[in-house]
Amino acid sequence: MTILETIRGPRDVKALAEEELAELAEEIREFLVHAVARTGGHLGPNLGVVELSIALHRVFDSPVDRLVWDTGHQSYVHKLLTGRQDFSKLRGKGGLSGYPSREESEHDIVENSHASTALGWADGLAKAAQVRGDGGHVVAVIGDGALTGGMAWEALNNIAAAKDRPLIIVVNDNERSYAPTIGGLANHLATLRTTDGYERFLAWGKEVLQHTPVIGQPLYESLHGAKKGFKDAFAPQGMFEDLGLKYVGPIDGHDIAAVESALSRAKRFHGPVLVHCLTEKGRGYEPALAHEEDHFHTVGVMDPLTCEPLAPSNGPSWTSVFGDEIVRIGEERPDVVAITAAMLHPVGLGAFAERFPDRVWDVGIAEQHAAVSAAGLATGGLHPVVAIYATFLNRAFDQLLMDVALHKCGVTFVLDRAGVTGADGASHNGMWDLSVLQVVPGLRIAAPRDAAQLRAQLREAVDVDDAPTLVRFPKESVGPEIPALDRVGGLDVLHRGPGEDVLLVAVGVMAPVCLKAAELLEGRGIGCTVVDPRWVKPVDPALPDLAAGHRMVAVVEDNSRTSGVGSAVTQSLQDAEVDLPVRTFGIPEQFLAHAKRGELLADLGLTAVDIAGRIGATWDRKQKEGSEG
Amino acid sequence: MTILETIRGPRDVKALAEEELAELAEEIREFLVHAVARTGGHLGPNLGVVELSIALHRVFDSPVDRLVWDTGHQSYVHKLLTGRQDFSKLRGKGGLSGYPSREESEHDIVENSHASTALGWADGLAKAAQVRGDGGHVVAVIGDGALTGGMAWEALNNIAAAKDRPLIIVVNDNERSYAPTIGGLANHLATLRTTDGYERFLAWGKEVLQHTPVIGQPLYESLHGAKKGFKDAFAPQGMFEDLGLKYVGPIDGHDIAAVESALSRAKRFHGPVLVHCLTEKGRGYEPALAHEEDHFHTVGVMDPLTCEPLAPSNGPSWTSVFGDEIVRIGEERPDVVAITAAMLHPVGLGAFAERFPDRVWDVGIAEQHAAVSAAGLATGGLHPVVAIYATFLNRAFDQLLMDVALHKCGVTFVLDRAGVTGADGASHNGMWDLSVLQVVPGLRIAAPRDAAQLRAQLREAVDVDDAPTLVRFPKESVGPEIPALDRVGGLDVLHRGPGEDVLLVAVGVMAPVCLKAAELLEGRGIGCTVVDPRWVKPVDPALPDLAAGHRMVAVVEDNSRTSGVGSAVTQSLQDAEVDLPVRTFGIPEQFLAHAKRGELLADLGLTAVDIAGRIGATWDRKQKEGSEG
Repeated sequence: MTILETIRGPRDVKALAEEELAELAEEIREFLVHAVARTGGHLGPNLGVVELSIALHRVFDSPVDRLVWDTGHQSYVHKLLTGRQDFSKLRGKGGLSGYPSREESEHDIVENSHASTALGWADGLAKAAQVRGDGGHVVAVIGDGALTGGMAWEALNNIAAAKDRPLIIVVNDNERSYAPTIGGLANHLATLRTTDGYERFLAWGKEVLQHTPVIGQPLYESLHGAKKGFKDAFAPQGMFEDLGLKYVGPIDGHDIAAVESALSRAKRFHGPVLVHCLTEKGRGYEPALAHEEDHFHTVGVMDPLTCEPLAPSNGPSWTSVFGDEIVRIGEERPDVVAITAAMLHPVGLGAFAERFPDRVWDVGIAEQHAAVSAAGLATGGLHPVVAIYATFLNRAFDQLLMDVALHKCGVTFVLDRAGVTGADGASHNGMWDLSVLQVVPGLRIAAPRDAAQLRAQLREAVDVDDAPTLVRFPKESVGPEIPALDRVGGLDVLHRGPGEDVLLVAVGVMAPVCLKAAELLEGRGIGCTVVDPRWVKPVDPALPDLAAGHRMVAVVEDNSRTSGVGSAVTQSLQDAEVDLPVRTFGIPEQFLAHAKRGELLADLGLTAVDIAGRIGATWDRKQKEGSEG
Repeated sequence: MTILETIRGPRDVKALAEEELAELAEEIREFLVHAVARTGGHLGPNLGVVELSIALHRVFDSPVDRLVWDTGHQSYVHKLLTGRQDFSKLRGKGGLSGYPSREESEHDIVENSHASTALGWADGLAKAAQVRGDGGHVVAVIGDGALTGGMAWEALNNIAAAKDRPLIIVVNDNERSYAPTIGGLANHLATLRTTDGYERFLAWGKEVLQHTPVIGQPLYESLHGAKKGFKDAFAPQGMFEDLGLKYVGPIDGHDIAAVESALSRAKRFHGPVLVHCLTEKGRGYEPALAHEEDHFHTVGVMDPLTCEPLAPSNGPSWTSVFGDEIVRIGEERPDVVAITAAMLHPVGLGAFAERFPDRVWDVGIAEQHAAVSAAGLATGGLHPVVAIYATFLNRAFDQLLMDVALHKCGVTFVLDRAGVTGADGASHNGMWDLSVLQVVPGLRIAAPRDAAQLRAQLREAVDVDDAPTLVRFPKESVGPEIPALDRVGGLDVLHRGPGEDVLLVAVGVMAPVCLKAAELLEGRGIGCTVVDPRWVKPVDPALPDLAAGHRMVAVVEDNSRTSGVGSAVTQSLQDAEVDLPVRTFGIPEQFLAHAKRGELLADLGLTAVDIAGRIGATWDRKQKEGSEG
């Protein structure tokens, strides 16, 4: 039996002898590499926090003490130490979540995988403890990358203000988010990292200066009397202490004893304190360390020795088609520039950055800044393309509305991972964009159905210079090309059945599903027209006219059915006084548990069979009402 | 002729002799007090930046140099200096905007009145200038309050990273937003403010230390060689310089020569630089300085001498009803706590804060933190009430969705200034909440129609402890009570006409408009039922049933008609297979120029006459189709 297998909870971690800890760490790394290779998941971040997680559970008493993991993809070790060691279905239906999960364990608090939230959660938990007079420590673990997000700043500002409210911030500094962390903060952290031994230097300075008489008193004391004191000159924790946070560090995050000692000091300090731990993403696994792009931030199913992918590739991804086309556009248009929020490669901007290094900016995990600086870039005469995962654009809703759209800025947002994404669970699905963004005046939204359309619509989007545009596509591989029969207004007609009974409006990647549903309906004698609106916002003026020739309309989208394209199409018919039965198909108003995209779509009834069945039932009911009425 | 009257643009400001500037400043203050007293508007902030604005226009060449005003309510002086001196219709229909306006002037860039955006805009503008090889300086003016917003941090982090990209940040530090600025940053700025003369001290220290030999070399040099250098010990600009920003200050922001000198130095510096100006909100106007709450941040129409309001009061405001009821609730429930984002008094939490000082938190201009810390508070066993202007909640959409709703936190959001607000223009209207928030799973939204309903629904909201709730109301005075005939499901039936032709769904404050429209329709022989759904999300299950007894449905809301309650009601009917004509009335998809609320509603056709007319026309068309068919 390994040590790891004996761990049923934090109590067992605490009971281990100090000399067993290194072995436990090694076993955990071995476990992680093999388990994650089998299912895919976040590998690099978890390899980096093995010792930190062990130390946290030895010093603190979860769940009485609250451990809040920022982003949460680094919580695998925490899961192993809190009684969850069956990783066989990690991120799969019915298996462990890839993030903390309240349903799984009382040791988990925050499930939201969006970065930079932990400090805000911790501030709220600490305030609640103070008001209620509860005991228990609150500990937030946040990466250096997540500190670049504005939420972290807002929280730091609040946490630092209350000198009497204990709260421990552990900065897990691996110099990276996906990619190396950028910006002024990163430089400051680098300064902190390079000052090992400053305390010794400080002691020396004190020694020397105390014996240097100046104007009648020891120089040290006169310096000490200055507002900030002498210590700061050599203890460049400046920024955090300037804000009012006690700073401890830097600590070698792979030295369990050192981390335990620092955390214990922090625990005894009755106020806000920041513990700066240096860790290495991918620690202990050579292929991860050697992987320059992201140190195996996430991996697919792979051979743990060769790191060769074991899942078959289904052809080019939507991301790669975008990545290719944006380089071509960049060649033709020197005013086209690109922005990423700490995800240059995942969003497909790697080639663009290589070709045009001066025309791409990684703004950090800072979606708000991505959008607002894009407004500035557009006003300055360029055309920015903001490439981002759909779920993260929610962070920049206000900026898209108030900075980009209000000022009629020509900014193109490219949303990757739109719709149901699957394995990453509730907070990674990009299923709200087509709903939430409907209200933005002037915004034009494209949902391409295939690679050719993505290329074409991306170009159409970038050609708009007086309003925001948005192009959205899903995570999966791009399917075969779906030709149009003809174009009516801006709509691509994909299919015209015998008779015009039902108009099926297929949004983007739902085209194949709608074509199949039409086939099934026509098998029942219900004639269908299938159109791809291409630009789903605004609704094409040709749509109500086309609908008026039919007896029923159905809209199918890979997006929340609340307030989505279905609602927009319905309203366009109402406004045109075309009062036909409309049925809307999309994701119901709920958060989705982790599972494969296909499993989720099937569970939600977004299959051709389900859709055809429901349309057919309504059709039959209407026929019956008609013959009775 | 006054000096002010001779100013037609920045060139005239530059041409003035130094000794004329104080007189110009005095004239501007005189002008502001009288002009703003006549129309209402932002007074305190503008009185505070008179000298700063003059200095900016003397040192820089707008519009070649780009002046970006954060929030923009302090741009009145800038308007006066750039040829806009007719303040007679300030903030009124056809008059000057209360914020910068691109339509008004080429000197204006950012119209968004949401705080903390200027640095992001400036970063984008500076990047564009670098890529295009344009000349011109980029200057952002931001208050200390706005620096507490996360966007400011994200921007600082990016700006500081590029040592070779010139950008000037002017911090207009008056120690306040509406209220005194809070948090660790405020403490740090206070440190900076109290170090006037540190440069002299530094010079002295250098002098002394250079002559103090230590281990074979001058101590100064050995200290200087340390990573951070000696200067920091006495120049506690720490935080900004730690990030990589050159810091200049603190400067007396009312000393034009000093500000000009500092700005000139900053202008010559080829990189990012922060100029820290100390100003006084309300400067030069005793009543403003004496006003503790907010130094006359905004004033209504008033007598400039006595400061007595000249516009008649229309009875209690919605804000005051909320402010009163939340104190009562607080008396009964010790777990109810409150959060404001730098607007304690404007959102009506003043009395609550006085009564329960330990149960209220001002988080700064940090709506994201308001929401995420509320999630933490709820998880910690309290029930937070986040009181906020409707338009600003857009900043926290992701946090409401991902932190509050996903974790089923019992948090109540109270949205003041919902719907059309008017004088503050496009970015202050709270007209998107009922649309954007439709997608949030589990969220319940109340739109009370009168004071009694506000009190009742606030209590119902605070009683929900496993999901977010939201109560929204407008800016204006609360109207008379509107009694219900009875309640069907959760719906209040306000009127039952002869015959069930049209079901009018009246959202919140649109109840009186709908009752009047019903009267008009019934005058034409069209029988109406008017219901107030009270809780507009989720749609009450009784609604489709009730609708099915009618022949047409109309929904009227003080909110974007795109994706609003009208769409939600429509979808609930579709889902129940109730296929009736539905017509939706709300704010069309556009940004609204500044004008009075009543003027805007009339312009948008949201009056009883317009609504009845449009419903009647549809009714007539359907009757005709019916008789023909």
